[in-house]
Amino acid sequence: MKPILTELGRRMLFFDGAMGTLLQASGLKAGQLPELWNLERPELICDIHRQYLEVGCDILSANTFGANALKLSDTGHTVDEVVTAAVSLARQAIHTSGKDGYVALDIGPTGKLLAPLGDLHFEQAYDLFKEMMLPGARAGADLVLIETMGDTYEIKAAVLAAKENTDLPVFVTMIFDEKGHLLTGGDIASAVAMLEGLGVDAIGLNCGLGPVQMLPLFEQLHSLTSLPIIVNPNAGLPQVVDGKTTYDITPDEFARAVHAIAAKGAWLVGGCCGTTPGHLATVVAQCKDLAPLPIVPKGRTVISSYTHAVSFGADPILIGERINPTGKAKLKKALREGDMEYLLREGIAQQRSGAHVLDVNVGLPDIDEVALMPQAVRALQGVLDLPLQIDTTNLAAMESALRIYNGKALINSVNGKEESMHAIFPLVKKYGGCVIALTLDESGIPETAQGRVAIARKILTVARSYGIGKEDIIFDALALTISADQQAAQVTLQTLAAIRRELGAYTSLGVSNISFGLPQRENINAAFFTMALQSGLNAAIINPNNAAMMKAYDAYRALAGLDDQCMDYIAHYSAESPAPSTAPSVQALSL
Amino acid sequence: MKPILTELGRRMLFFDGAMGTLLQASGLKAGQLPELWNLERPELICDIHRQYLEVGCDILSANTFGANALKLSDTGHTVDEVVTAAVSLARQAIHTSGKDGYVALDIGPTGKLLAPLGDLHFEQAYDLFKEMMLPGARAGADLVLIETMGDTYEIKAAVLAAKENTDLPVFVTMIFDEKGHLLTGGDIASAVAMLEGLGVDAIGLNCGLGPVQMLPLFEQLHSLTSLPIIVNPNAGLPQVVDGKTTYDITPDEFARAVHAIAAKGAWLVGGCCGTTPGHLATVVAQCKDLAPLPIVPKGRTVISSYTHAVSFGADPILIGERINPTGKAKLKKALREGDMEYLLREGIAQQRSGAHVLDVNVGLPDIDEVALMPQAVRALQGVLDLPLQIDTTNLAAMESALRIYNGKALINSVNGKEESMHAIFPLVKKYGGCVIALTLDESGIPETAQGRVAIARKILTVARSYGIGKEDIIFDALALTISADQQAAQVTLQTLAAIRRELGAYTSLGVSNISFGLPQRENINAAFFTMALQSGLNAAIINPNNAAMMKAYDAYRALAGLDDQCMDYIAHYSAESPAPSTAPSVQALSL
Ligand SMILES: [Zn+2]
Ligand SMILES: [Zn+2]
Ligand SMILES: [Zn+2]
Repeated sequence: MKPILTELGRRMLFFDGAMGTLLQASGLKAGQLPELWNLERPELICDIHRQYLEVGCDILSANTFGANALKLSDTGHTVDEVVTAAVSLARQAIHTSGKDGYVALDIGPTGKLLAPLGDLHFEQAYDLFKEMMLPGARAGADLVLIETMGDTYEIKAAVLAAKENTDLPVFVTMIFDEKGHLLTGGDIASAVAMLEGLGVDAIGLNCGLGPVQMLPLFEQLHSLTSLPIIVNPNAGLPQVVDGKTTYDITPDEFARAVHAIAAKGAWLVGGCCGTTPGHLATVVAQCKDLAPLPIVPKGRTVISSYTHAVSFGADPILIGERINPTGKAKLKKALREGDMEYLLREGIAQQRSGAHVLDVNVGLPDIDEVALMPQAVRALQGVLDLPLQIDTTNLAAMESALRIYNGKALINSVNGKEESMHAIFPLVKKYGGCVIALTLDESGIPETAQGRVAIARKILTVARSYGIGKEDIIFDALALTISADQQAAQVTLQTLAAIRRELGAYTSLGVSNISFGLPQRENINAAFFTMALQSGLNAAIINPNNAAMMKAYDAYRALAGLDDQCMDYIAHYSAESPAPSTAPSVQALSL
Repeated sequence: MKPILTELGRRMLFFDGAMGTLLQASGLKAGQLPELWNLERPELICDIHRQYLEVGCDILSANTFGANALKLSDTGHTVDEVVTAAVSLARQAIHTSGKDGYVALDIGPTGKLLAPLGDLHFEQAYDLFKEMMLPGARAGADLVLIETMGDTYEIKAAVLAAKENTDLPVFVTMIFDEKGHLLTGGDIASAVAMLEGLGVDAIGLNCGLGPVQMLPLFEQLHSLTSLPIIVNPNAGLPQVVDGKTTYDITPDEFARAVHAIAAKGAWLVGGCCGTTPGHLATVVAQCKDLAPLPIVPKGRTVISSYTHAVSFGADPILIGERINPTGKAKLKKALREGDMEYLLREGIAQQRSGAHVLDVNVGLPDIDEVALMPQAVRALQGVLDLPLQIDTTNLAAMESALRIYNGKALINSVNGKEESMHAIFPLVKKYGGCVIALTLDESGIPETAQGRVAIARKILTVARSYGIGKEDIIFDALALTISADQQAAQVTLQTLAAIRRELGAYTSLGVSNISFGLPQRENINAAFFTMALQSGLNAAIINPNNAAMMKAYDAYRALAGLDDQCMDYIAHYSAESPAPSTAPSVQALSL
C-alpha cells in the first residue's frame, strides 16, 4: 500500500468516526478512560475499527487520544503499553478485514492548560507527547493525528514531539468555536501561519461543531492555507431529547453537509463525536467519487502571535525597535538584572503607539543570551499579543527562542554569506518563520542596488534548496548613513524598488541608521521612512513612540489610499491627544 | 543682399570698431555730443563708416548711441533728425563704397538710472527708446543694436521698444565687470534668461574690458545661451602713458585674442572703445576664414530676477505661497489699502525661510488687479531679489505685470483649454517666462495619470505652434484632496513620474491642497511633499515658513544626494535656531 502522503489528493480519503461514542454505547462509564479498553476489551476496539473499514474509511484513529502519562498516572498502566496495544489493534483490524487502511496515532490534548494560562510547561507538554510518539511509531502507525486541539502552544509541543521522534506525516485538526476562535483565543489565520511554518502535512477542523457550522470556518481555512484540509465534524449540534443526548441532524443530512465541504476542497473527511459507521457509510457513499480540488498555493507572507496573524502586503508593517539594548543604558541594566517588567513596559508602550511587531534583542557581551532570549520571549508573549521578531546573532539563543515561541516568528536575520544561510535556514525550516535577509555577503555590502538584488537572488536560490519559499524571505535593503555617503539613501531606495519589481519579494529596513551622525535625526528618519514606503518598503524597524515617525506612517497610509476615508488618520489627529509621559504600569498584568 | 539673420552663422560677421575714439581724434571735445556731428560733420562720419567697410566690417553701427531725447534736449535738434541723419550716413557709406554691409541702429543707455535705483520710470525709458526706433527703422537700419547696457531693466525697455515699433532683428550687448556683473548687479545667467525670454536675436558683450578679460565671460555666456553671440571688446585695458591714454595690448594681440573667442563660438566680433579700422583689419584677416561653430541648444529651464537666474533641475525649487489672499484676512486688508509694506514683509519672511521664488497673487473680487498687480511686482522686485511667479487669472493684470517685471517670470498659469492656451501663450512668447501648465482642459481634471499626461502632450503641441519649447513649460500634476478621493494622491504622484519620464518635462505642484479638510494638515502636506519630490517634483508651491515643510525639503535634499556632505542640513539643524516670532521690519528698506 502506498504511503498516505502519496495517496493524498489523488482521491478523497476518509477518516473514521467516533470511537468514544461507540464505547459508551458498549458500556463505557463517564470518567472511565477509553484508552484502557485497548487492554481490557481489545476485541471490541478491534471490531469498531473493522466496522469503519467495512463502510469504506481509509484512516483508523487508534484509540490513543488520551493515552498520555498524565491521564494514565493512576491506572497502573504505562503509556508505552496502552499506545502499543491501541496501534496494534488498529493494524490487526486492517489485517483481519482484508481491507486497505492507514493507522493514525491519535494525539489529543494533555488535559492541562499550558503556562502562562495553566501550570504545565511547554517542555513538559512536549515530553508527554514524546512519550506517546515513540511506541506509536514503533507499533506501526502510518501518521500522527494531533486533534481536538484548542491551544496553539500545545499543538506546537505535539508537532515538535511528532517530528523530532518519528518520521511520520503529521496531521493537525483543531476545535474552534462558531466564531472561529480557539480556546486560548487564536484565530484560524494564526493557526494556519504557525502550522504551515512548522511544516505539518495536513490541517483541519474537528469536533465542537457539526458540518453545517463548520462550512464557513472551512471556507476561511481554505482561503488561507495551502495545505490539504481535513474536516471531521461532530454528528451535528447536541440536543437533549427525553433526557437523552442526540444530534440536530440525521446521518443523511450529515453526509450531505460533509459532501458540500468536500466539494469545496476538503481532501480528507470523517466524523467526530456522535458519528457512527452509519454516518461514515453515507459520507463515503456520497463523497467517494469526488475528485479532490487542486490546491491553489496562497503564497502569503505571514507571521503570527498566539492570537492573530500579521500578513505582509501593501499596508506597511511597523516593527518596534525599542527592545534592543544598543545605546540604552536602562534596558541594559534591566537585562542584566533579569527585570522582565522593564521589557514589558517597553513592549506595551510600543503596542499602544501602534507597533504591529516587536523586535526582541537582548544581546549584551556579558549576558547568557541562550537563557535570556527565551525568558524575554516567554514574558512578552505572556502579556502582549503582538508577533515578535527574534533578533540575535547567537544561533543557540535564536533556536531556544524559536522553540518556545507561540506562533510563527519574524527572524532577524540571515544574510548572503554561506555560513549564515546554512546555519539559519534549517531553523527557519524547522520552526517556521519569516526571515529577514540582509542583502550583504562575504564581499560586504554592494554599493549598487543591482549588487544587492544579486545577493537577494542568491539567497532565494539557497533558501529554495532548504524548501523555504520566497514568501518567507523579507529582504532588508540596508540603510547606510548618508552623512558618510550622500548616495546611500538613493541606493537603498533603488534596492527596495528593484526587489519588489524584479523579485516580487517583500522588503524591510532598519530606518534610523540612515541619519547616524546628523542633528535632529527624526527629520531625516521621517522623510526617509516616507520615501522608503513609497519605494516599496513593506516592514519598517522604527521607534513607534516617535511622533514624527508615526505621523509619516499615518500620512503615508492616507496618501497611498490605504486608509479608507482617511478614517485612521482623522481618528489619530482630530484631537491632539498628548502621548502618556510615562510608560504604563504592568503591575496589574499577570506574568 | 540677404537679411542679416539669414547670413548669421553661415560665416563670421564683423562689427565695426569705435566711432567716438575716431571722432575725438578728429577734434570732438569731451562733453560734446558725438551724435550732433551727424548733422555738423556728416562727411567725417561717412568716412569713418567707409574705413570700417574697407577693412572688411559687415555691420556699421550708426552714430546714434546717445541720440535720445534726454541727451538731445538742450541741443535744438530732435531725435528724429539726428537718428535719421545717422542711419542715412551709414547707408550712404555702404552705397558709395560699393561694399556689402548692414546698418545697425545703435542704442546706448539713456544716461539715467531707472527706478527704483534712479528716477527714470520704466515707461519713460521705453518712450525714449521708442522715439529712436521709429526714425531708425524708417531711415533703413537693418537691425537694432542695444549696446553697452548695464541694467537689465533698461535693456527690457529698449527691447520692447524695438520689437513693438520695428520689425528689425534685435541684438543686445552688455557691459560686465571682470566678475561678470552688470552695473545693477545682474549676472550673465540672469541676463541670458531675460533676453532669451524676450526673444532677442543675438546677445553678447561689449566695452568695459579687453578681449583677454572677456574670454572667461564669453565662455560662461556660451555655456548658458542658445543664441548667437557677439563679442565687441575694447582695444584692451586702458593705460595712461606719458599723460596719454593707450591700451595694454597691440592691434595684433587684440586680433589674436578676438580670434580665440571666435574659435570658441562667437559668431559676431568687432571692437569697442579704442579700436580703429587698423584693429578691425587684423581681426577680419585672422577670423574671416573661421567657420562659425554650430550652436548647441542648451534647453535650460530657467527663470530670473534682476540679479540671478533660478534653473529647474534635480534640485527642487520652493515657491513661497504666502502672497495670496485666499483665506488670509490681513493680506486682503493690506491689498485693499494698497499697503505694499505688508506684502514686502511676507516676501522677506519667505525669502529668509528659504523660498527660491515668490508667488504673487493679489486677486480679490473688489480690487483693480490690473493696477495692483504691477504695483505689487514693482514693490517686491525693488526690495527682494527672488524671481516672482505672476499668479493671476486676469489676463490684463498678467500682461501689465509681465511687462514691468525685471527678469524672466514664472507665469501661473495656462491649462489645456483652447481659450487659455491662445490667451496665455502669446504673452509667454512676447515677454518671456516659464509657464505653469495645469493638466486639465475643457473636460475637467482627468482621473488618471495617463489622462493628465495626454493633456500635457496637447499643451506641448500648441505651445510649439507659438514657438514655445518644452523647456518653458512646467506641468502642474494637480494635487486634489485625499479626504474626498483616497486615490487622489497616488494619481498625482503617478502623473509627476510619468511627465518626467515620458515627456522629459519639469513639474510643479501646489502641495497643500492635498490635505484640505483633514486635521493637522502639515503631517499630510510634509509627507506628500516628500513623496512628490521623490516622484520627480521640480517645483513646489508651499509655505516656506512652515517648519515641517522645510524639514521635509532639507531632509529630502540630504537623502537625494543633493546636499553635499549634508552641509546644508547640518547648517540648518545643528543648533536649533528658533524662527523669528514676528516678521522682520522693512522700515529701513527703501521702496
Ligand atoms: Zn469530537
Ligand atoms: Zn566701449
Ligand atoms: Zn562702443
